[in-house]
Amino acid sequence: MRGRLIGVSLGPGDPGLITRRAWDVLISDARWAWPVRRAGGESHALGIARRAGLAPPADGLPLVFPMTHDVAVLARAWARAADAVLPVLRAGRDVAFLVEGDAGTYATFTYLARAVRALDADVPVEVIPGVTSFQAAAAGLGLPLAETDDAVAIVPAGYGIGELDRLLPHFDTLVLLKVKPLLDAVLDWLAANGLGDHAVFIEKAGTPEERVVRELETLRRCKVSYLSLMLVRNPGRERGTMIRGCRPKQGDA
Amino acid sequence: MRGRLIGVSLGPGDPGLITRRAWDVLISDARWAWPVRRAGGESHALGIARRAGLAPPADGLPLVFPMTHDVAVLARAWARAADAVLPVLRAGRDVAFLVEGDAGTYATFTYLARAVRALDADVPVEVIPGVTSFQAAAAGLGLPLAETDDAVAIVPAGYGIGELDRLLPHFDTLVLLKVKPLLDAVLDWLAANGLGDHAVFIEKAGTPEERVVRELETLRRCKVSYLSLMLVRNPGRERGTMIRGCRPKQGDA
Repeated sequence: MRGRLIGVSLGPGDPGLITRRAWDVLISDARWAWPVRRAGGESHALGIARRAGLAPPADGLPLVFPMTHDVAVLARAWARAADAVLPVLRAGRDVAFLVEGDAGTYATFTYLARAVRALDADVPVEVIPGVTSFQAAAAGLGLPLAETDDAVAIVPAGYGIGELDRLLPHFDTLVLLKVKPLLDAVLDWLAANGLGDHAVFIEKAGTPEERVVRELETLRRCKVSYLSLMLVRNPGRERGTMIRGCRPKQGDA
Repeated sequence: MRGRLIGVSLGPGDPGLITRRAWDVLISDARWAWPVRRAGGESHALGIARRAGLAPPADGLPLVFPMTHDVAVLARAWARAADAVLPVLRAGRDVAFLVEGDAGTYATFTYLARAVRALDADVPVEVIPGVTSFQAAAAGLGLPLAETDDAVAIVPAGYGIGELDRLLPHFDTLVLLKVKPLLDAVLDWLAANGLGDHAVFIEKAGTPEERVVRELETLRRCKVSYLSLMLVRNPGRERGTMIRGCRPKQGDA
């Protein structure tokens, strides 16, 4: 019997946002593993467990996932991580891979699980979903991500302003991730679309270092973290006509 | 001192997905309130707390939110609900409004909070975010909602097939909510776009009655619940070029 590889979502940073099921796994006999950017580096996911009052077990496995888009480097890292956890799983012990946020939303766990299953298709994989940083950000601001019939887009800002132009007419909420590299352009775009009062900048959402900026123009003079997002509500969206069960039909289908 | 109005997200149905902070509120002195469709009706949110082993307190407040799009009817319901909780808050006691899923994502809490604040702007409102049904569905299926640089759209299917056509080229994942009224048209659209093998239908995601259907054509002969969604991965998406920090710049900004 193989142990289970469990993606344990811990939420964005507040240990109160750990789910009860994730907690049960953390205090079980499962062997912990967690992602680090480099050998000996800090792990944000592990930090959440620490703040919850849990000490990392002595046999915990830091797994190195470098911050790069180089596919060959990444593939080697995933393979090495899979090699590190496979003996544990084959010995029948569960591995709890700690994930910041939600394991299904921009998380490393997907790649680890794929690499492990490529080596041994019999390993059972389980995912415990969790709260994302942008949900926590919206909650903290008292802003809904979506009201009735709203449409929400979650997009890395790196796709560029042209893409934002194309998406804006179709969405009530835009969650712009990783805004740092394009921040000035995004600020210009918000101003040009009259959205300056409907957007909020959040750095390290859901963590103890969270910073919220509503006076967006002040950002032009600031240094911001890579972990920055923007919540944009689009009050001017033309809602269109919804089909049966929602709004009167008008032949769009 | 007013009590706090707390939107307590309980996740989609599995009591293990209740967060620790939500749990703490449930077992605190806060007075519970929960949404029902009609007087004397069942509450899905309350059912989650029950399955977690918590008995609803004798002084719990069922608040009627009818299932309608009639804005006048809804406004009256919100006002009545606000009238019911306001005396509790003014007496200094917290009110824990139980929410299925996430209080910021298509939830009634937004309207209740607005109605209460309209009557008394001094009431502190707090939102505890939670896991959504579609996150739980993705986790259960072992499907990521988003991998690196993916874009995700969350749209009520009622916007129609034309809208899906417009959105498809821009997204790696489409979360189609409330697919029931348009189900046959959505099935045709998936087939026409070669997405039949990349879409999964989930009814009552995250609840004990969850039903997953991958053989989509069988749905044409089935009765489905109003609480149905479709997760669609778009493997053919043209990823385009991302800007600095993500992929090589190519002048989109």
